[in-house]
Amino acid sequence: MLTPTAQFPIIGYIRSPLSQKFGIPRQPNLVAVPSVLEMIAPFDNPQAFVGIENFSHLWILWQFHQNRINENQEFQTQVRPPRLGGNDKIGVFASRSMYRPSNIGLSVVALSHIDSEKGVRLHLLGGDMLDGTPVLDIKPYIAYSDSLPFAQSSYAQEEPMIKQVWISETANADFDNCVSENSLSKNDVEIIKALIAQDPRPAYKQMISDREYMMRYKNFDIVFVQNYANTLTIIAVKKLD
Amino acid sequence: MLTPTAQFPIIGYIRSPLSQKFGIPRQPNLVAVPSVLEMIAPFDNPQAFVGIENFSHLWILWQFHQNRINENQEFQTQVRPPRLGGNDKIGVFASRSMYRPSNIGLSVVALSHIDSEKGVRLHLLGGDMLDGTPVLDIKPYIAYSDSLPFAQSSYAQEEPMIKQVWISETANADFDNCVSENSLSKNDVEIIKALIAQDPRPAYKQMISDREYMMRYKNFDIVFVQNYANTLTIIAVKKLD
Repeated sequence: MLTPTAQFPIIGYIRSPLSQKFGIPRQPNLVAVPSVLEMIAPFDNPQAFVGIENFSHLWILWQFHQNRINENQEFQTQVRPPRLGGNDKIGVFASRSMYRPSNIGLSVVALSHIDSEKGVRLHLLGGDMLDGTPVLDIKPYIAYSDSLPFAQSSYAQEEPMIKQVWISETANADFDNCVSENSLSKNDVEIIKALIAQDPRPAYKQMISDREYMMRYKNFDIVFVQNYANTLTIIAVKKLD
Repeated sequence: MLTPTAQFPIIGYIRSPLSQKFGIPRQPNLVAVPSVLEMIAPFDNPQAFVGIENFSHLWILWQFHQNRINENQEFQTQVRPPRLGGNDKIGVFASRSMYRPSNIGLSVVALSHIDSEKGVRLHLLGGDMLDGTPVLDIKPYIAYSDSLPFAQSSYAQEEPMIKQVWISETANADFDNCVSENSLSKNDVEIIKALIAQDPRPAYKQMISDREYMMRYKNFDIVFVQNYANTLTIIAVKKLD
């Protein structure tokens, strides 16, 4: 592209249990996924965070790093948001799609706590960033200017519907094993259920079928099927080699 | 800086009646300042905006262009926010200061209307961007994920106090002249009063004094003084040559 550009430093990276797009919540703050923002030098100076613990929420500006901008690619003006069933097209600037000219992500997260024992690590809840996501900026959430509860948000007015999640006997035993050997915590199991309840499948595949889907969480593949209306069942928890 | 960086295209520029920092609201959405986002090619394609008029508010990601990043400058870890009187320091990531590693601004604005007769111009209300500000991205405001009315926002919990604004007889006659010759609209005059009511002066200068201050709006300098407690008086409206 021959348009003017702007360049910014990367100040840190996200560590998340989610290393694949499938399963990532469609907006931040829907599921309390725990993640860590690891600052890199010179931005890992605790002085730069003095006072941040008095804010309950932060904006994270980050780069959709799995959608690297191809400088020779033509500008794609429209996208098909999952919320519209994946069929209807809308303008890219009327969407939060990652396939946009400046591939910057904007997510509000809760600040759980800050660990500045060695460098700085912000412990976050509710992020929708993949493991390894580069972070550009952190800003405190200021309710009086950022919170507009009555804003009209078109096709995204309502929170996405969630599905009921069942766990098969096999999967239950798998989870119990993981918890007893400490490879997953009880909280991890709750987060996994909440992520599956969001139904990670594209809208056009959300139907009763015996097709198995896998969501990766940490080093596990969580296998689920839709065997009833509005209900997903986790049928197995497979540890990766 | 030897840190990794990320580069993004500039997609348009802001046209605002405010060409100087003095007078710019301290947060977006406090004063309904009208501004226009002029898209540049190839991003000025109306297809990319289909559906955007169904959102009442937008996020604008922009560059603090009057704070160009100096690559040799050391990382400044702390700032003195105006809200704290300009004395107390806090970490830069606990602030919205423009003096930050990635000089990206984040503002929520109301979308008034879109003009796509020739290119695309988004008419906005409530921006806190200077005239000429480069824009990186536009995202629809999604209330269910972006609006957190109960977020704790530390020193920025409350909206800034506003002051009362009086207009001297001279300034009143100046405004009447401007309106009759169409160099300012009646709405401009209301916006000017609302901007002065925010008190653009640094906190440590907010006291009764005969010192005159000037806020530039379009091609006018608005002269005001603080002659009573919590009251600012506009004493003259000077047209620039």
